[in-house]
Amino acid sequence: MKRPIIGITMGDPAGVGPELCLRALKDRQVLRRCVPVVFGDAGVLERVGRLCRIGRSAEVVPLEIWRREPSTNRPLVVDCCSPRGSDVRPGRIQKACGAAAYAYIEAGVQAAMEGWTAAVVTAPIHKEALRLAGIPYPGHTEILAELTGTDRFCMMLASDEITVSLVTTHTAYGDVTAQISRARIRDVIRLTVAALKRLGKPRPRITVCALNPHAGEHGLMGDEERTIVEPAVRAARKAGVRVTGPVPPDTAFIPARREATDAYVVMYHDQGLIPFKMLAFDKGVNITLGLPIVRTSVDHGTAFDIAWKGKASPNSLIQAALWAVRLAGRR
Amino acid sequence: MKRPIIGITMGDPAGVGPELCLRALKDRQVLRRCVPVVFGDAGVLERVGRLCRIGRSAEVVPLEIWRREPSTNRPLVVDCCSPRGSDVRPGRIQKACGAAAYAYIEAGVQAAMEGWTAAVVTAPIHKEALRLAGIPYPGHTEILAELTGTDRFCMMLASDEITVSLVTTHTAYGDVTAQISRARIRDVIRLTVAALKRLGKPRPRITVCALNPHAGEHGLMGDEERTIVEPAVRAARKAGVRVTGPVPPDTAFIPARREATDAYVVMYHDQGLIPFKMLAFDKGVNITLGLPIVRTSVDHGTAFDIAWKGKASPNSLIQAALWAVRLAGRR
Repeated sequence: MKRPIIGITMGDPAGVGPELCLRALKDRQVLRRCVPVVFGDAGVLERVGRLCRIGRSAEVVPLEIWRREPSTNRPLVVDCCSPRGSDVRPGRIQKACGAAAYAYIEAGVQAAMEGWTAAVVTAPIHKEALRLAGIPYPGHTEILAELTGTDRFCMMLASDEITVSLVTTHTAYGDVTAQISRARIRDVIRLTVAALKRLGKPRPRITVCALNPHAGEHGLMGDEERTIVEPAVRAARKAGVRVTGPVPPDTAFIPARREATDAYVVMYHDQGLIPFKMLAFDKGVNITLGLPIVRTSVDHGTAFDIAWKGKASPNSLIQAALWAVRLAGRR
Repeated sequence: MKRPIIGITMGDPAGVGPELCLRALKDRQVLRRCVPVVFGDAGVLERVGRLCRIGRSAEVVPLEIWRREPSTNRPLVVDCCSPRGSDVRPGRIQKACGAAAYAYIEAGVQAAMEGWTAAVVTAPIHKEALRLAGIPYPGHTEILAELTGTDRFCMMLASDEITVSLVTTHTAYGDVTAQISRARIRDVIRLTVAALKRLGKPRPRITVCALNPHAGEHGLMGDEERTIVEPAVRAARKAGVRVTGPVPPDTAFIPARREATDAYVVMYHDQGLIPFKMLAFDKGVNITLGLPIVRTSVDHGTAFDIAWKGKASPNSLIQAALWAVRLAGRR
C-alpha cells in the first residue's frame, strides 16, 4: 500500500516544535506508515538540529517550488521562509514567530485542502505570540475552522486508554453553562461517532457526562441535565447511537465504566482533561472533528522552558502523526 | 494502649448500612484497633443478619441504658428503637427510615460530643427519605455541622492514594463561582493542614487547583484565579503553609504532581471527585473537617438496589472506622 503524505506544521519556531519535527522526520514508526512533510523554516530547523545534535534527514524545498510540484515519496521540509532562523530567540514570545507559526498552518492546511497531503499534524503554537502578530485566536482549532470554513467542529482527545470529546473547550468556568445547548451536544455526539467509525468502530459506545455533580440529583443541584443534556442524549439514541447518560461525572471514569465506553462526551475542558491526562499524559493526541481535512495535534504546549535543548519528548507528535494516518486511511 | 470507642451510625435502615455495620462489628482489623459501637436498630440488624447470614457478634443495649452507662470494652449495638425492623422494606424510600437515620446520627453525635466515643463513623443515608421525614439537609455534613453548632467546616476525601478537600461540595455547576471566596479557600486550606497534622504530617504539602481551565491563562479564560484563588494561596503561604497553586486543573493530578502533594484543595465537587474515584474507588473515606468531633464516613450511598442481599462490600465503612481511629488518636 502506498504510504500517505502527512503534513506537519512546525509550530512556534521558539518552542519545542522544531526539534520534535526533526525527530519525527527520522522516526522509524512514522516513516514506516507515512511520508512526513514539515511546513516550517529550514534555517530554524538547521540551527536547532545543530544545537540538539539531530542529524539532517530530509531534503528542503522552498514553498513556491512545492506549490508547483506538491508531491514526494521521501521526507521533506517545505521552507516557508519566515522568520530568518538567526533572528529567533528560543523560549521567547516573539511577534515574528507568531506570524511564522500562522504561515506554516496556512501552508499545511492549503496542501491538505487541495488533497496533496492526507492530513495536517500540528506542532504547538503560542497564543501570545499569535496575538502580537495580530492573529487573535484562542488556539489551533479555531484557526483551522476559519481556514477551512467550518462551523461545527469539536476537539477530541484520543489515546489507547481513553477518548474524550469536548462540548466546550477553552471556556472560562463561568461561561460554560451559557455555551451548552442540545444542538451543540448532539453535534459533538455525531462528530464523535463519525470519527470512531473512521477509526474502525462501526457502532461505538458513547458515554455523555452530566454537567452537575451527581447529574443534578433530580434537579436538586442544577437542572441542565433535565433541560439540555437528557433531551440531547435521547435524540442521539433515537438516531441509533449507542449512548449512555447523562452519567454522574465522578463515577464516569472508574475502570468498569471506561471498559464500557469507546468515547466520552464531556461538558467542559477539565471534566475531560483531568481524567485524560491522568490516564494518557504524554500519550494523547488532539484531533479536530468536523473539518473537511484530517487534523491531529500534540496535546502539549510550546514548552518554552526546554525549547531547543533537545530534551523534549517527540512522543506526542509521533502519536499525532500515527493517528492522522489511521484517520486518513479510512476516509 | 487502650482501644478507643468508635461510634458507628447505622444509616438508612432500608439501605446497605445495616449489613455493613454487622460486618464491621466482627471485622478483625476494626476490633484490633477500636471498640465499635453501632447506633441503630436491633430489630433491623437481626433481620438483616439472618437474610445475609451474618452471625451476631455484639450485645444489644437500649439507648436509655447506654445513656446511663455510656461505656464498653466490647462491640455493642445501641438500640435506638425506631422504626420497628418488621416494617422496613429494603431498597425503598421510607419516611420512617429517614426519621430513624436521623435519630441514629443524633445519638452518635451526642455520644461523641460528650466524650463517650472518640469519633462518629456514619453509614449512608438517603436524602429523599430524610426529606419525607421533614429533615431537609443535603447530606450528613450539614446535619453534623448543625448538631455540633459548627460554622466553618469542609469535606475531605482521604485515601492512601489521594486526598482532596472541597471548597464547594454539593453545589450546582452554575452556583460554584458565587460560593468561592478568599476567606472560604483559606478556611479549607487551614482545616486541611490541621487534619493532615493529626494524621502525622507535621508540614503537609498542599496543592490548590485553579477554577478555570489552564488556571485562566492570565485572565484570558476567567479571572477568579487573579482575584480570589491567588490571594488566598498567598495568604496561606504567608502564614507558613507549604502551598502550591492555583495550578491548572488538568495537569494537577498527573503522577509527578501527586507525588509532591499531601492534599489537594479543589474548587468544586467533580474537580476533586473525578480523580479521587479514579484512584481510590471503594477505598476512600469521607472526613468532615472543622467539627468539634472526629467524623468519618463511607464514600458511597445507600445502594438500595443491593440492600439486604449480603453483596455490599464493607470495605469503605471499615476504612472509615480505621481512619477515625487514626484521627482520634492524635487529637
